Amino acid sequence: MLAIRRTAPDPDGRLTGIEIADRPAPPRPDGWTTVRLKSASVNHSDLAAVRGPGFEPGTHRVLGIDGAGLDEDGNEVIVYPIVSGPGYADPLYDPDLRALSQGLDGTWAEEVHVPRANLIPKPAGLSWDHAACLGTAWLTAYRMLFGRADLKPGETVLVQGAGGGVSTALISLGVAAGLRVWVTSRDPDRGERAVTELGAHAAFSPGARLPEQVDAAMDATGRATFAHSLRSVRTGGRLVTAGAVTGGTTDLDLADLFIRSISLHGSAMGSPTDLRNLARHCATGGARPKIDSTWPLHDAKPGIARALAGDQFGKIVLHCA
Amino acid sequence: MLAIRRTAPDPDGRLTGIEIADRPAPPRPDGWTTVRLKSASVNHSDLAAVRGPGFEPGTHRVLGIDGAGLDEDGNEVIVYPIVSGPGYADPLYDPDLRALSQGLDGTWAEEVHVPRANLIPKPAGLSWDHAACLGTAWLTAYRMLFGRADLKPGETVLVQGAGGGVSTALISLGVAAGLRVWVTSRDPDRGERAVTELGAHAAFSPGARLPEQVDAAMDATGRATFAHSLRSVRTGGRLVTAGAVTGGTTDLDLADLFIRSISLHGSAMGSPTDLRNLARHCATGGARPKIDSTWPLHDAKPGIARALAGDQFGKIVLHCA
Repeated sequence: MLAIRRTAPDPDGRLTGIEIADRPAPPRPDGWTTVRLKSASVNHSDLAAVRGPGFEPGTHRVLGIDGAGLDEDGNEVIVYPIVSGPGYADPLYDPDLRALSQGLDGTWAEEVHVPRANLIPKPAGLSWDHAACLGTAWLTAYRMLFGRADLKPGETVLVQGAGGGVSTALISLGVAAGLRVWVTSRDPDRGERAVTELGAHAAFSPGARLPEQVDAAMDATGRATFAHSLRSVRTGGRLVTAGAVTGGTTDLDLADLFIRSISLHGSAMGSPTDLRNLARHCATGGARPKIDSTWPLHDAKPGIARALAGDQFGKIVLHCA
Repeated sequence: MLAIRRTAPDPDGRLTGIEIADRPAPPRPDGWTTVRLKSASVNHSDLAAVRGPGFEPGTHRVLGIDGAGLDEDGNEVIVYPIVSGPGYADPLYDPDLRALSQGLDGTWAEEVHVPRANLIPKPAGLSWDHAACLGTAWLTAYRMLFGRADLKPGETVLVQGAGGGVSTALISLGVAAGLRVWVTSRDPDRGERAVTELGAHAAFSPGARLPEQVDAAMDATGRATFAHSLRSVRTGGRLVTAGAVTGGTTDLDLADLFIRSISLHGSAMGSPTDLRNLARHCATGGARPKIDSTWPLHDAKPGIARALAGDQFGKIVLHCA
């Protein structure tokens, strides 16, 4: 099976630690099923795996967390990337969960094994490439907006940051769902593009006083924006935190939470139901991840290098078959 | 109308700043209704008003936030103490809300004026004295458990502290609703009494490692217990903060929230619907506020003094008629 595997540590990100090669497929766990992949995408977690620590010596783990393809009956499916134990209301509530490419072989391959519960129907109106870009940042954004914050059409949401994968997904999904979307950006050009290209209703500089308080704030930035997110939310509003690229430890005034009846939700990824609804929302509502470029699996290294260098605008997609 | 009014500042709490006297009733706002009070109770906010700052010069504000009595048609009602503007999903979401005794004349009186929407039916199985003790700490506890944390029978809840008004309400209401209730207490005797008298299932010392993580933690203590509350909650669990007697500013690791999908809810008081359901839950499920002593309105000063001194075990209740 042709796949991109991690074979050695590669702290400098020169792609010397991965191989693209045809090796025997890994054994399939009892009761699991196999998806013949059409497209897979490149995510931050893959880049961290290419570069960073966490290499498992002696393994040849297949990379890739996001993918879409055909199940054994020929149905078009999106692969839900989290595998959890039984008895959890939500797979994310299992402290011992595993994810594709993280403890399990992933989607940068011709085939991937997953439990049958991880197969999500791909709507016909969604391309393979778009379907392969929904399982991480877009799934995270979907749950933040419609799960954790439970936003309703007509409400106003503040999105901190206009450039990252989660931020652009939040803007696109929020606009398509009838929310009023306000964004902040350090870079005025990025803020302007969030308005003109993604449909955000207004862009502000970081920390700006907003025209009015918002119903909910979405913050995947962390310490740098947390205080602004909190004071921008109305009494009875919601703040969702899903990342901390600027650092995670912050001061919190509990009185500000209880006097104003604020809910602060931590959020990570989403459930299989979230992914199913996200795919349908994209197919129906028109929101789509932006795709930077596509690369064949057997010649993927230039695409991965492009993502490592941060040169892309949108998603890097691999064609697996 | 006989009432207990605040007439002067009284920082030492010697009861020199309040009068118990018969004066003309305050004018009734258009569209409001009048309740002839049977019982009213003494709450922390009343004691703070007797003692603390916030005296409004030139006013003779009637004290008392909690009460129950007869409406103009002779129906038995509990008075919901918050008055908010129109258009809010929840009265607590109005940043300009007013409360009885705080901007409005209160319940330590023969009569109180309120909007008709503030009349909550008193279940027949609930005494006047018990009904007059539900509108603050018990209402706060009800919303924390069943609103914000959305606890279900069979789930486990950690209650930080075993002695305060909110803590004892949390324990009593949780036990009556089929929750497994664990408490912490600095004082082992109080912890033991929470088990033997209120029905808690186990008591622990502050900061103790629990036998397992809980579904939700209820914290009206603040900084001193916040870190323990957070690490005691399972992945996907809930932490409700409703007070900060030990200080409100704390460190928060956002990553701990989003990696573990934790929700942190600020909570204060509850809605009219919460109060209605709380009263029915008490009438049906058997939980009752503990009453320390009752005092006639015209001779209430010894009862108020008892509460100011912190000598009571349970609620101080005034008989208004």
